[in-house]
Amino acid sequence: MRITETAGLALATRLLEEHGAPRDHAVLQARVLVTAEMKGHPSHGLQRLPRLIERIKRGVMDPETKGTQRWRADAILDVEGSSGFGPVVAMAAIERLASHIPDLGIGLVAVRNANHLGMLAHYVEAIAGLGFVGIALSSSEALVHPYGGTRAMLGTNPVAIAVPTAGEPLVLDLATSLVPMGRIHQHAASGRPIPEGWARDADGHPTADAARAKAGAIAPFGDAKGYGLGIAMELLVAALAGSALAPDVRGTLDSRSPCNKGDVFILIEPSLAPGLPARLLAYLDAVRASPPAEAGEPVLVPGDRARKRKAAASRDGFDIDQRLWEELNALSRSRVLAFEGQRS
Amino acid sequence: MRITETAGLALATRLLEEHGAPRDHAVLQARVLVTAEMKGHPSHGLQRLPRLIERIKRGVMDPETKGTQRWRADAILDVEGSSGFGPVVAMAAIERLASHIPDLGIGLVAVRNANHLGMLAHYVEAIAGLGFVGIALSSSEALVHPYGGTRAMLGTNPVAIAVPTAGEPLVLDLATSLVPMGRIHQHAASGRPIPEGWARDADGHPTADAARAKAGAIAPFGDAKGYGLGIAMELLVAALAGSALAPDVRGTLDSRSPCNKGDVFILIEPSLAPGLPARLLAYLDAVRASPPAEAGEPVLVPGDRARKRKAAASRDGFDIDQRLWEELNALSRSRVLAFEGQRS
Repeated sequence: MRITETAGLALATRLLEEHGAPRDHAVLQARVLVTAEMKGHPSHGLQRLPRLIERIKRGVMDPETKGTQRWRADAILDVEGSSGFGPVVAMAAIERLASHIPDLGIGLVAVRNANHLGMLAHYVEAIAGLGFVGIALSSSEALVHPYGGTRAMLGTNPVAIAVPTAGEPLVLDLATSLVPMGRIHQHAASGRPIPEGWARDADGHPTADAARAKAGAIAPFGDAKGYGLGIAMELLVAALAGSALAPDVRGTLDSRSPCNKGDVFILIEPSLAPGLPARLLAYLDAVRASPPAEAGEPVLVPGDRARKRKAAASRDGFDIDQRLWEELNALSRSRVLAFEGQRS
Repeated sequence: MRITETAGLALATRLLEEHGAPRDHAVLQARVLVTAEMKGHPSHGLQRLPRLIERIKRGVMDPETKGTQRWRADAILDVEGSSGFGPVVAMAAIERLASHIPDLGIGLVAVRNANHLGMLAHYVEAIAGLGFVGIALSSSEALVHPYGGTRAMLGTNPVAIAVPTAGEPLVLDLATSLVPMGRIHQHAASGRPIPEGWARDADGHPTADAARAKAGAIAPFGDAKGYGLGIAMELLVAALAGSALAPDVRGTLDSRSPCNKGDVFILIEPSLAPGLPARLLAYLDAVRASPPAEAGEPVLVPGDRARKRKAAASRDGFDIDQRLWEELNALSRSRVLAFEGQRS
């Protein structure tokens, strides 16, 4: 079924408020989930909401806290997340650090023990919106096997980077796994096999059986290089945030454990070289205009597809699983209409 | 033929001194080239030395300068490289910034217009040796085509990351191209075809002909994700250093143009969480000990192979092309023996 952006935001915000979130916390967490849906990434969208609600009910998540911030050094803001909403803890710290970047030039936020951030693009887009280069890293449960290995030892360890230009920023947001675990789950749910090379089962053997892969490990993207990048991100986050390493991480995929992963955000003021933002934009446009491998399939720059999808979803609404919509409505004390607030 | 570390350093240092480099500049540039050989990366080794000499002779490189440093903000050291040796300009700035990191927590060096750095691992290893997390980025001439594209629009845009632990640091050093352009040149020199997917010719068509690929473009590693990472690094370096973008970069592969690429180094003090360095080491050891995909082929952590090769080369010497050794000796006023200084 199709719902509007407004309806999605209204239901998610209401549900979170009904379960103890202050209004501004509920609005921000809802925004992050709905934006992921609009960009075409439902694995980071509203399907995460029932688990967040369950986590609040079980007391492993605190909907009211923004975490505790402490300057570990002049340019590092250290944050104990105290089981707060990932987006709430992160954005509070990013905003505080951002006000110092014009003096510092560069600064870092290191967060421990906050909940799932959702798509990292949200944070680097916000940072780029302030005129700064943004880098975001986050760790997760062990889901990815090393290159040349067979056991899940690494998180999916996403990295996002945004660089402002004279036009739209470049926005990169990728997991260092070959595919998201959500994709494996989708194949398992529909009984489809997975392609060779995607995953191994719990015994470490290559498998085409998505159900067996769910209990196993996903391959890293890009062979040895992608693995290298993934394990470097694993160590970076733990070294900078003091957070758990993948085999010990809990709480982004379950409803029972406090979340002990780490998040890192770096904000940097760009060079003030004259004409630089226009030069960056002209370069990206030259890449977009360069001859494609397939006629009619123009070269894309990271962020282009998500931006286009989001604009379309803002205009036309977006599809969500009807069972999920019913489930969310059942969790709320009152019903939201899918097309409530739709523009005529 | 095989030469010793000592012989390689002696000849490279002498050659650079004979062509106007102060002793300490010559020693550092020689160290970077010889270490690349010892780690098994001759494309970043002594074969670059004749070009450096030629660049000095032609006046597009200044062997004496350390560049001009200026604090752009409290935590950003901006460097005009003034055509100096890449390693000399970079290490001078890194050392200056490093002395401030205990107060700042994080800081950045942005360099324009210095010469080729060689392997980035050198710099992040040095930073990790001081106890800090190190990140290094550098840009280059356009050699890589976009994912879904056909023309060389991106540099090989290497990234290096080092994270200190209670034992050896993790040291990642990778180019965002699928293979180094040096590998294409090796195939061309020996008349061997290149595998499907490595490169396109100057007209943008896929090619197995290494000679045609030399004039064309290499594929990015890891498909869309590797391309995304490569173009993000391209924009990051230009945005932070104010340096040229790949299509306008000159001077790392030729002997005639001043070098106008950019380099970025980020230094970060790790979290002081108790036991963290030991925890990072234990994790890396657990990854190394995890079951391999092929019996007898243990899982590696980035930096392991290079460290092992370097130790072996330090003990046993390393192989270099005899013609290169003769060429280097011919450039010098006096001859260095390949085994001069060899341990008995």
